Amino acid sequence: VHAGRILNWTWHYRRLQADCELLRLPVPAERVLATEIGMVAPGDATVKVIVTRGAGGRGYAVVPMRGTRIVAAFPPPQYDPANAVDGVRVRRCSLVLSEQPRLAGAKTLNRLENVLARSEWDDAAIAEGLLGDAGGHVIEGTASNVFVVKGGRVATPALARCGVVGAQRERVRELLARAAIACEERDIAWGEVESADEVFLTNSLIGAWPVARLEARTWTPGPVTRRVQSLVADADAAG
Amino acid sequence: VHAGRILNWTWHYRRLQADCELLRLPVPAERVLATEIGMVAPGDATVKVIVTRGAGGRGYAVVPMRGTRIVAAFPPPQYDPANAVDGVRVRRCSLVLSEQPRLAGAKTLNRLENVLARSEWDDAAIAEGLLGDAGGHVIEGTASNVFVVKGGRVATPALARCGVVGAQRERVRELLARAAIACEERDIAWGEVESADEVFLTNSLIGAWPVARLEARTWTPGPVTRRVQSLVADADAAG
Repeated sequence: VHAGRILNWTWHYRRLQADCELLRLPVPAERVLATEIGMVAPGDATVKVIVTRGAGGRGYAVVPMRGTRIVAAFPPPQYDPANAVDGVRVRRCSLVLSEQPRLAGAKTLNRLENVLARSEWDDAAIAEGLLGDAGGHVIEGTASNVFVVKGGRVATPALARCGVVGAQRERVRELLARAAIACEERDIAWGEVESADEVFLTNSLIGAWPVARLEARTWTPGPVTRRVQSLVADADAAG
Repeated sequence: VHAGRILNWTWHYRRLQADCELLRLPVPAERVLATEIGMVAPGDATVKVIVTRGAGGRGYAVVPMRGTRIVAAFPPPQYDPANAVDGVRVRRCSLVLSEQPRLAGAKTLNRLENVLARSEWDDAAIAEGLLGDAGGHVIEGTASNVFVVKGGRVATPALARCGVVGAQRERVRELLARAAIACEERDIAWGEVESADEVFLTNSLIGAWPVARLEARTWTPGPVTRRVQSLVADADAAG
């Protein structure tokens, strides 16, 4: 939330709505939720919205109950501005994501894989860890989505088997399409990351960060990444 | 907890201890936890113990914080006594378990697969759903472990890639070993379930239930299942 305005609300709400439907959770009404966010975040804030099935008994059965909605405001992120300018250093995580097509794409609270992956490093110079699947494809960062650029063509991993379809990822895909820049959603082998002209990460807090280094491979931020940053900044400014 | 006595405490505590270590959570001291359980469950109860990393900020990083321990007592289970005598009807779930060796065996709160699987049926005549992996093996029930018997030989699925290593499963394996009944832990194809002489389910609340029917296949409770029920009953009586 910036100056009381919810950024990228369309894709955030779609994400929540789709995941609630997938998990058979009550979908908060769009206007109610937006009002609640406005109440906890009148100025600048990072807002986290959690929807649960509610308070019930033991067991795995889905029984009718009143859902719980938690809308919490945190301070806005304070990232080093150099991350967006010069790019960040990332690593390849050793944890391999499991594949569950029934839950792939959803942003659920079942995030133990991300916690395990994030605990693989504590070097503050490494901004993010990249995760892959058992088939040798890159899927995402522990808390971001990834895009690769090669010969002016953009691609981002297909997330039908694992990974989270981030709200910023979807917005960037939409912004690229509107700017007539093709972006493929497909399986991407690790080798394609290494050989990419540009690699960048997205999420709602970082916007888009160039990747400057992955293990021994280094990059300087390229034109497509700069264009994406500009498109995101314009969209944020426009609401 | 029966008459103020915690049943199968050894394996319950081992399970909790191993999983806390895996997830880098604080391990509650055995005596402290047993005392707390005694406080909430002085008589007969189903007790659920949850250990979390505690209350922290956003993000996936493991940061030092004071852990949270929830020890809650519920009424004892009230199952139809016929379940243990005549056996239960089970189904094969369509959900296929994902494989994550780093978390396999652990009883974590990331149980969305179980929730999805349990929501596949609402026929009260079906007591449990069996789950398998992508390789065509049976792994477990949504809330129980499974054993098959063929020609007097007992086997239970290996849980190195997915599944929960239940405290009752481990106790039954120990009881079988002490009774000089071999029990293999290995991959078990669905076909082996169909062709088994006996199939039974275990967990801490049901003890051991014979499977009387899986889809079209039916069984009458057999001698090994009866022996296991007797061993569990004796162990519960002894503490």
